[in-house]
Amino acid sequence: MKGYVQVYTGNGKGKTTAALGLALRASGAGLKVFFVQFMKGMESSEQAALEKLGDLITLKRYGAASFIMDVPSQEDIASAREGLEEAKQAMLSGEYQVIVLDEANVAVQYNLFSVDALLDLIRAKPDDVELIVTGRNADKMIIEAADLVTEMKEIKHYYQKGVPARAGIEK
Amino acid sequence: MKGYVQVYTGNGKGKTTAALGLALRASGAGLKVFFVQFMKGMESSEQAALEKLGDLITLKRYGAASFIMDVPSQEDIASAREGLEEAKQAMLSGEYQVIVLDEANVAVQYNLFSVDALLDLIRAKPDDVELIVTGRNADKMIIEAADLVTEMKEIKHYYQKGVPARAGIEK
Repeated sequence: MKGYVQVYTGNGKGKTTAALGLALRASGAGLKVFFVQFMKGMESSEQAALEKLGDLITLKRYGAASFIMDVPSQEDIASAREGLEEAKQAMLSGEYQVIVLDEANVAVQYNLFSVDALLDLIRAKPDDVELIVTGRNADKMIIEAADLVTEMKEIKHYYQKGVPARAGIEK
Repeated sequence: MKGYVQVYTGNGKGKTTAALGLALRASGAGLKVFFVQFMKGMESSEQAALEKLGDLITLKRYGAASFIMDVPSQEDIASAREGLEEAKQAMLSGEYQVIVLDEANVAVQYNLFSVDALLDLIRAKPDDVELIVTGRNADKMIIEAADLVTEMKEIKHYYQKGVPARAGIEK
């Protein structure tokens, strides 16, 4: 099966959620998924849910523990770069049909790794692998390199009313 | 936990996928999900994947078998209305914390049920239930009634290059 590069960006809700849904659907078809989260700790409900999908999903977490930061630490940077390299190796291994780089766009924005490093990975994609890149503020070059780009646009958001993230819904 | 009304609309990819991801995340937190699909047969990979999540997910399919139609049959209409009513009963039963009405906006657009019928369900939502409504062309009144609205906006789509839907990726 021919694979493509999908980007989910924009300021609205649903980017990581769509990546989770893609992983769920892929596993339902027997495809193997390598799911890397940059920029945030995987929430326990997401982790528990992905674990239910069994051996078809490999989940890895790298980068910064939180979105709320000004300057990433050297440790965050080293972790994110290790994650990107590991994702690239997984992508080239022939073992996985779907690679998810969750919040990779934000990792670029915070200089955890360069847009060129992410582009290198995209350009190295084998023809039969589907690659999903999420995160707001996708770089123009990433959008150009993608086959499918969806902008999740916030029209209305109750967070504006001060609702905290809820376990099982947002996290 | 206080629940809200979320709408995922727009012409872009990721609406049903985000609803699947939400169901996955909710089940990871031990929440019970009632997932109704209108307007299309559940693809086998989505069904197989949701089944892996076990007893926390109840999946129902109603309405028309396909998006590709001009006029819905009486059977399609009766089926969709039955589905909406069943979703309402599930929502009011106290048994489920999350209700998903996948493609309900499209069901309204094709007159399978009225926007008023969908609004009645939204207005009857118990305070502690999360309600997710997906589908392009959400009615203005549905957007007004929602707490969170995300528009999935197509920026670039390889379907324009003539790629058919692939098992495990789109279906």
